[in-house]
Amino acid sequence: MNEVLIVGSVALDSIETPAGTVDNALGGAATYGSIAASLFAPVHLVGVVGADFPAPHIEFLKSRGIDLAGLQIVQGGATFRWKGDYIEDLNVAQTHETQLGVFEHFEPMLPEAYKQAEFVFLANINPELQARTLDQVARPRFVLCDTMNLWINIAREAVVKVFGRVDMAVLNDGEARMLTQEPNLLRAARAIQQMGPRYVVIKKGEHGSLLLAGDEMFAAPAYPLQEVVDPTGAGDSFAGALMGYLAQTNDVSLANIKRAIVTGSVVASSTVQDFSTKSLAALTHQEVARRFEQVRRLSAF
Amino acid sequence: MNEVLIVGSVALDSIETPAGTVDNALGGAATYGSIAASLFAPVHLVGVVGADFPAPHIEFLKSRGIDLAGLQIVQGGATFRWKGDYIEDLNVAQTHETQLGVFEHFEPMLPEAYKQAEFVFLANINPELQARTLDQVARPRFVLCDTMNLWINIAREAVVKVFGRVDMAVLNDGEARMLTQEPNLLRAARAIQQMGPRYVVIKKGEHGSLLLAGDEMFAAPAYPLQEVVDPTGAGDSFAGALMGYLAQTNDVSLANIKRAIVTGSVVASSTVQDFSTKSLAALTHQEVARRFEQVRRLSAF
Repeated sequence: MNEVLIVGSVALDSIETPAGTVDNALGGAATYGSIAASLFAPVHLVGVVGADFPAPHIEFLKSRGIDLAGLQIVQGGATFRWKGDYIEDLNVAQTHETQLGVFEHFEPMLPEAYKQAEFVFLANINPELQARTLDQVARPRFVLCDTMNLWINIAREAVVKVFGRVDMAVLNDGEARMLTQEPNLLRAARAIQQMGPRYVVIKKGEHGSLLLAGDEMFAAPAYPLQEVVDPTGAGDSFAGALMGYLAQTNDVSLANIKRAIVTGSVVASSTVQDFSTKSLAALTHQEVARRFEQVRRLSAF
Repeated sequence: MNEVLIVGSVALDSIETPAGTVDNALGGAATYGSIAASLFAPVHLVGVVGADFPAPHIEFLKSRGIDLAGLQIVQGGATFRWKGDYIEDLNVAQTHETQLGVFEHFEPMLPEAYKQAEFVFLANINPELQARTLDQVARPRFVLCDTMNLWINIAREAVVKVFGRVDMAVLNDGEARMLTQEPNLLRAARAIQQMGPRYVVIKKGEHGSLLLAGDEMFAAPAYPLQEVVDPTGAGDSFAGALMGYLAQTNDVSLANIKRAIVTGSVVASSTVQDFSTKSLAALTHQEVARRFEQVRRLSAF
């Protein structure tokens, strides 16, 4: 069975939303991505935490079939912590505090078994680290790369460089506009495609997502929700589930990529229904299948 | 053949967008709606202009099969004029000036032939006038009602009252949130449904539209455009084409309403590709069919 290799942040998040607050809850791009991917395929996780990272989180991740041989645990170091809120706008996080901790000197090192992975998800992290992770993979078959506004602002060239090495770039609408200076999303997606990735996915939150694949396009609606509790990790879950689905089905045709995108969107819709990874962790295959069919009915005409 | 009865503003617009400007160009909700509907069915227009309304516009509307027996021409009166721009945001018009002119004392009066219309489009206009138009229709079969932020602000109760008498309410996302005080669009659509209309359509510009039909939902993607020249009249064209399509096909089933929505969205995508009604007026059935199939491919998975 195909594994998914995932590199990115593992974190402890303190979050405030209109629905409430959590403190030092399990978070991080690689965490959400791995839990989502593990619904479909075994996961090799690459990341770093401090000795303060709670043991139950380790046990939980292992129980999901997530291989933690690539998770460095730095004695005397502190786990990456993020504090933010979504009070003004549920679609935009306001960062209060970022404590890099062990991430400041992190260098990804892939265990031997990881180097054969064919499906690689470069989750949100410094683009130089994404590149150095990819350097260690022998024969990647499908590489998905995420990023965020921070890296576009302070390391744009490195983002463009790593995009030049991947099959699919995934960004939200604001990031796509920021990276390309193109207000029109279709033009922005085409400009990102020019950077290298054959597939470009623009995430638009409640408005779904747009895939550009060569000259073809695919508009995936979002699974409609009456309430969003905590948007943290939606994008990471989307991309993680997308990659897990591709690995499980062992099929990177455009038709299957479309199904993977809808699957990602369905998994993300669950993530935001509770704080931290709570709802995502409880998500079943049955519920994924149910929502997938609902999205199919929603968009058929 | 079924006619579509359309009441609403007929105007002369002065518009500035990032792509340029036009002065005193043909505009108005009923104008865009009628031209769009006339692609599919004969139109009965109800509205008012002043003696200053250019004769070539009258000739053009007649040439589209639009019956103008219900268009009052007030001697000595001035046509409704609107001046605005979309410089800051292509999705939001900034109004500079509104000269009501003959609209100040307008009272819709339906010619006998109009009173038998089964398909009625209450385009954007004072909700009291929408209601008094509907009063004169003998046996309406399918009534679509549009509105705008102005009426929600100054005549909310009248908007809610007329919504209670129609089959379909069409609003953009901002208006739906304003009318219901619900930031979540799905909740907002349900709240509008509670006001009476069986069908609620929320227009989301480049993000397409959402239909709530009883318990069912339909997400229609927008036809993707690389450039928008002038967004004026997009919503009016959408609703006009939707109604024209329903009248032509003589079928108000949910399956056909979905096709009507995609047709409306395709026609609106043409409207915004040039200033005023220029691109809409040049739109062919062939191009509508071509874009319809593109939207089908765009959303299929």
